[in-house]
Amino acid sequence: MTLRLDADAFDPMCPSSAMPFQIGDKWTGMVVLCLEHGPLRFNELRVPLRGVTPKVLAETLRAMERDGLVTRTPYDENPPRVEYALTPLGRSLLALVEAARVWAREHLPDLLAARASYDAAG
Amino acid sequence: MTLRLDADAFDPMCPSSAMPFQIGDKWTGMVVLCLEHGPLRFNELRVPLRGVTPKVLAETLRAMERDGLVTRTPYDENPPRVEYALTPLGRSLLALVEAARVWAREHLPDLLAARASYDAAG
Repeated sequence: MTLRLDADAFDPMCPSSAMPFQIGDKWTGMVVLCLEHGPLRFNELRVPLRGVTPKVLAETLRAMERDGLVTRTPYDENPPRVEYALTPLGRSLLALVEAARVWAREHLPDLLAARASYDAAG
Repeated sequence: MTLRLDADAFDPMCPSSAMPFQIGDKWTGMVVLCLEHGPLRFNELRVPLRGVTPKVLAETLRAMERDGLVTRTPYDENPPRVEYALTPLGRSLLALVEAARVWAREHLPDLLAARASYDAAG
């Protein structure tokens, strides 16, 4: 049994034990990618993220703001304009999100095939 | 606006659009790490994963089996013995999970500090 399997390896009090697969929900990574090249407004984010409802996108952005991953900047214009941008912390997720995308592109078909096969076997 | 922000960039029918941050729940990555060095029995997994209830661990393992990430091998013994092992597909997640752990070790304190500050500002 290695050190990794020690009872303390995933101590909830140890920051490194928190599973980043669970940082935010499934939209967080996509928002990070969308903002890579500069700030965007809410409705601009909705173009690439068309699978998300406005309500869920708003909740995602608020959670990301709370976690210090994005900034929200309102401009005093009519109609009101609000821009979202990555913080340095949010930018630090880019490599990880990109690695996850590469994994998915390579392996997700196998995962989905396994799932279909499992379900077919009942 | 880059190609990445095209409406099709995150088409739900495109495998690479699926966000691996959401493959499995927050325990999936930890199970992958636990099984890196060989098969383990259910109760052996519960040692490092002591934060998880038996019910949730069982559900996690079943979902991972369904997704082709682990195999479940029952041995005809008394008491019954069941071992879980990574498949090649499950093993393909190791580098990503390890990268996520490195990110967390480096940046999670900043995230938690941002969250506390946001909540304090009410």
